[in-house]
Amino acid sequence: MRFDLVSIFPKFFDGPFEYGVVARAAKTGLVQVRTHDLREFTHDRHRTVDDRPFGGGEGMVLKPEPLFDCLAGMGLSEKKDRAAARETVVLLSAQGKPFTQAMAVELAGLERVVFVCGRYEGVDERINELLCDREISIGDYVLSGGELAAAVILDAVVRLLPGVLGNPDSAKFESFGVEDAGPGYVAGEVPPSTHGAGGLLDYPHYTRPAEFRGIGVPEVLLEGDHVKIRRWRRERALEKTWRNRPELLKSATLTKEDRRCLSDLERTKMEE
Amino acid sequence: MRFDLVSIFPKFFDGPFEYGVVARAAKTGLVQVRTHDLREFTHDRHRTVDDRPFGGGEGMVLKPEPLFDCLAGMGLSEKKDRAAARETVVLLSAQGKPFTQAMAVELAGLERVVFVCGRYEGVDERINELLCDREISIGDYVLSGGELAAAVILDAVVRLLPGVLGNPDSAKFESFGVEDAGPGYVAGEVPPSTHGAGGLLDYPHYTRPAEFRGIGVPEVLLEGDHVKIRRWRRERALEKTWRNRPELLKSATLTKEDRRCLSDLERTKMEE
Repeated sequence: MRFDLVSIFPKFFDGPFEYGVVARAAKTGLVQVRTHDLREFTHDRHRTVDDRPFGGGEGMVLKPEPLFDCLAGMGLSEKKDRAAARETVVLLSAQGKPFTQAMAVELAGLERVVFVCGRYEGVDERINELLCDREISIGDYVLSGGELAAAVILDAVVRLLPGVLGNPDSAKFESFGVEDAGPGYVAGEVPPSTHGAGGLLDYPHYTRPAEFRGIGVPEVLLEGDHVKIRRWRRERALEKTWRNRPELLKSATLTKEDRRCLSDLERTKMEE
Repeated sequence: MRFDLVSIFPKFFDGPFEYGVVARAAKTGLVQVRTHDLREFTHDRHRTVDDRPFGGGEGMVLKPEPLFDCLAGMGLSEKKDRAAARETVVLLSAQGKPFTQAMAVELAGLERVVFVCGRYEGVDERINELLCDREISIGDYVLSGGELAAAVILDAVVRLLPGVLGNPDSAKFESFGVEDAGPGYVAGEVPPSTHGAGGLLDYPHYTRPAEFRGIGVPEVLLEGDHVKIRRWRRERALEKTWRNRPELLKSATLTKEDRRCLSDLERTKMEE
């Protein structure tokens, strides 16, 4: 799979892509990652990539021409043929559709993804209309540019590619992943929402030492009864979700036992 | 303001923090950013930072001791005194509360933020209980580590600090920022949700050339009638929100004119 990143800060990605899963995937040839310096596609002495907005307002807007010239040299399909060619051009922007794990799965099925990293107040809307296939936001907060957003999406996509994670099961059993090994778990079942674990957050993990600074690992994890461990993990996943992401419980797949656990949590909270 | 990042890949941040607003803020002394190599706080020959999970399961879990030793040397307040000292220790994790612009504003009011970047399947839960004040997730997708999440939060926070952005107004007029200059706009008014613009996405921007590849800039932006421009921008912000984030419209502050515009959009869609 090939990724291209267009940015005025191409060196920005040196750190993020030289460590961890992306670096490993690149080293084994599973992915190719190329960065493109937008300023190389300007033709004036000041290498201008932005200009003032028509109609007035604060800040600067990314001009269309340099981006157009940059993408023209990439050997991409025409916009109308990109879906068939399994290519996509993504504009990173706070105005985009929210990035989700489901979208990561979709992008992981493509041959090539190009990221256009906006800067400044925004990009000329014609870039979006003429060059890009989708506009994506990674969350409801304002970043100074699209570079971190592109790096986030690239990381989330690369780790889903077959052969990238050492253990093919690793990507499955985690929050927002495909499915947790809770009591309602059916192998291979697609969760109803983009959240996995029947829609729950992951349960807490513990490793050695069994006691650290006076706090021990929960007994059940040391006793080796796997039915009990499974139940404990499910309850802790419910508790974590109830505490940090209560809205996820509405769309989660819950058993009768799960509902009893949640009532107990509510009751304990009321009594406090 | 000071930021500390704990990671097994401290060089990861070289790119993200050497360009853009974070670099500029560091150069002018407005922020100090330090990275800490977690492996320097291990005491075995293999510099082990992770171990297998108690109770079985896939993957590895970040051990508590190295992190404890790392944070012990940072001169942080005790956990119970941190709020008063305006310090916070953040664990980045898919199980955390969702990061929002409101949270960025809150963190920007502190003196010091420490980011603990998890890796692998997760971190030993005692790290969370004993060392961290909050667990934050940047979105509903799975990343290979907390580094990108920390960089995202740091960027969103730093650009809110007084003096960091060239123009103090720049941070205000954008999606999820404080407030848009729409018809319902009251200067300084705090929006009802974490979304700004009366809860809308930003309107599209255009810059020169006035015509590019056969697509012209909308006439209204060239005519200089600021009442018309304001109205056009509000309508385009409504359209963009309706298309990419319809759920935001439920909590947005809408005028009668806004509602008429949305009905028109619905009608056009039905007719298509």
